[in-house]
Amino acid sequence: MLQTTDDSFDGGYFEEERSSEVVNSRIGDAADPRLKEVLSVLTKHLHNAVKEIEPTHEEWFAAIRFLTETGQMCSDWRQEYILLSDVLGVTMLVDAINHRRPSGATPNTILGPFYIEGAPEYPNGANICLDHKGEPTLVRGRVTDVDGNPVAGARIDVWQTNDDGFYDVQQKEEQPEYNLRGVFTSDANGDYWFQTVKPRFYPIPDDGPVGKLLGDLDRHPNRAAHMHFIVTAEGYDEIITHIFTPDCPYLKEDTVFGVKKDLVAEFHTVDDPAMAAQYGLPNPFLLTDWNFVLAPKPQPTSPRDPQ
Amino acid sequence: MLQTTDDSFDGGYFEEERSSEVVNSRIGDAADPRLKEVLSVLTKHLHNAVKEIEPTHEEWFAAIRFLTETGQMCSDWRQEYILLSDVLGVTMLVDAINHRRPSGATPNTILGPFYIEGAPEYPNGANICLDHKGEPTLVRGRVTDVDGNPVAGARIDVWQTNDDGFYDVQQKEEQPEYNLRGVFTSDANGDYWFQTVKPRFYPIPDDGPVGKLLGDLDRHPNRAAHMHFIVTAEGYDEIITHIFTPDCPYLKEDTVFGVKKDLVAEFHTVDDPAMAAQYGLPNPFLLTDWNFVLAPKPQPTSPRDPQ
Ligand SMILES: [Cu+2]
Ligand SMILES: [Fe+3]
Ligand SMILES: [Fe+3]
Repeated sequence: MLQTTDDSFDGGYFEEERSSEVVNSRIGDAADPRLKEVLSVLTKHLHNAVKEIEPTHEEWFAAIRFLTETGQMCSDWRQEYILLSDVLGVTMLVDAINHRRPSGATPNTILGPFYIEGAPEYPNGANICLDHKGEPTLVRGRVTDVDGNPVAGARIDVWQTNDDGFYDVQQKEEQPEYNLRGVFTSDANGDYWFQTVKPRFYPIPDDGPVGKLLGDLDRHPNRAAHMHFIVTAEGYDEIITHIFTPDCPYLKEDTVFGVKKDLVAEFHTVDDPAMAAQYGLPNPFLLTDWNFVLAPKPQPTSPRDPQ
Repeated sequence: MLQTTDDSFDGGYFEEERSSEVVNSRIGDAADPRLKEVLSVLTKHLHNAVKEIEPTHEEWFAAIRFLTETGQMCSDWRQEYILLSDVLGVTMLVDAINHRRPSGATPNTILGPFYIEGAPEYPNGANICLDHKGEPTLVRGRVTDVDGNPVAGARIDVWQTNDDGFYDVQQKEEQPEYNLRGVFTSDANGDYWFQTVKPRFYPIPDDGPVGKLLGDLDRHPNRAAHMHFIVTAEGYDEIITHIFTPDCPYLKEDTVFGVKKDLVAEFHTVDDPAMAAQYGLPNPFLLTDWNFVLAPKPQPTSPRDPQ
C-alpha cells in the first residue's frame, strides 16, 4: 500500500494496512536515535514477513513457544540464540557486513565458540598435533599486503579439531591441553609454516530447539572441516578466518554458512622423502600452501563503529 | 542485487549479496512445505532487515542477549515473548489477518491474558461490579447480523478491570471472585443490558526485558481503558473484542495497539432519576450504547485454517 501522508492517519489506532507505521510512530523523542532506527527497521520487516506468511493463531503460538524454549536452553556454557543466528546465516551476514575488504585480501569468516587466548607460541615448523592422531599435514605460506609485499612479524593464531572432530576444550580429559592450537610468527620474508593434521567436520550442538528446527527443515547439523586462524600485524586489519578442506562431504553444506569460495584450500598428498625429512614429517604427507593477504586497517567510518 | 539464475551460483558457499537465497536453498525435500515457506519468508525479511541496519558485532550481540533474557523471563505465569509480540503490534496484526470481516461487522481485537471460562451467567440488568468501587455504568445494546436483523440467544461474555485497574485474578485476596465478569444472553429482540463501572487503564508487566525495551524506546506500558467481550451465536463468527472509553489518556497510545477506531464507545453522563430507577442505578450514571454486529461463520479457506 502507498505510504501517503493521509490526513486521516493519526498514528494512534491499529490498522492492518499500515500496521508497522502505527507501531513505529509510538517511539518517543527521548529514544536513542540508533535504537529507534534499528527497532523501526526490524518492525517493518517483521510485519512484512507476517503479512506474507499470514500465520494462523496456532502458528503464531508455535513461534512464541520456539523463541521461549530457545531462550530457556541458554546457560553459562550454551548459547542457543547464537546457534539460531548461525544456522539462519545471520552470524555470517553480520560478519560479512563488518568485514568488507579490498579485492585480493583474505576474507573473514566467523570466530566460532572454541577460540581461547593464550595458546603456546611456537617457532615455525613446530607440530601442534599433540595426540598423534590423523593425517600429518604441512601448512605453509606467506603473509603479504594487498600489493604482494611480505609482512614480517605477523602473528598467526591457529586452532582446529583433532581427528575425532573435537576441540581440546570439548575433551579436557582425553586430549592434551592446547592440542591443535598454536601461535606462529611470519619470518623476515613473511613466511610461516607448521605441522598439524587434517581437520575433521563436526556437528554443532543439536539436542536443543535449534537442532530440532534443523531436523524439521531436513538439514544436518555439520560444519565443513576447517582450521581457524586469527592473523594480526601492526597497521593491518585483523583477519578472523578459516581454511576448509576441499573434500569434506559438507563443504557445500556447512550448517552455519561459514564457507566462502576463496577459503577452500588444497590438501595435496606429497610423496617426497627429501622434503618430508626437511620438515621432519613422515612420508607421504599432506601439503597445504596458503597465503594470507592483509588489508590496511580501515579508517573509522561512523561513530558507532570505531576501529 | 538482481536475482538471476546465474550459473556460478551453486547455493553452497556464503555470499553477502544473496545470503538469504543461500540459506533457504539448504532446506531439504523432506521438510514440511508450510514450514519451508514460513522459514524462507522469515529468513528473507530477517536478512533484509540486517542489511538495512548493518549492525555492528556489539549490536548483534545485544540482540542475542535481549532474545535470551526474554526467553529466560518466561515462567508458568509470565509469557514475555507474547508481551514482545504485543508491544511490537504483531499480536494485533496476526489477529487482524485471521479476522477480516465484512464491512459493518464488529471488528475483533486481542483476547489478552485475563480471560477465564466459567464466569457467572446473569439475567439482563444484573450488576457485575461486586466491589462497589467506580462510576456506575449501564451498558446496553442489540446483537444483530450484518443486515440489521436481531440475533436472539447470543452469548455475551464480558470482563474488565475494577476501578483500581486490576482484574479479579490479579487480586485474589482483595477482590470478590468473578468481580467484573459475567455472561449475558440477548433476548428475543437481540437486546442485552447490564450494570458495571467504568473500566480503568492499566500497565502491562514492565519489570522484564520488554518493559526495559519500552522504556528505552520512550514508550509507556499502559493499555487504554477497555471492557473485554466474547460474543457467540450459533452460525455466526465468534467475536473477541474490546470497547474502549473515549476519554482515556492512553486511547491513542495503547501499548499493545489493541484500539481500532470502530471500537471506541461513548460513556455519556445521564441525569435522569426515572431511567436510573428503571434500571436500578444511582442517579446520575454513565450510559454506553453498544451494538454487536455478527458476521456469518466463514467457510474454511485453506487446509491450515479450518473453522
Ligand atoms: Cu522485509
Ligand atoms: Fe570450528
Ligand atoms: Fe484487558
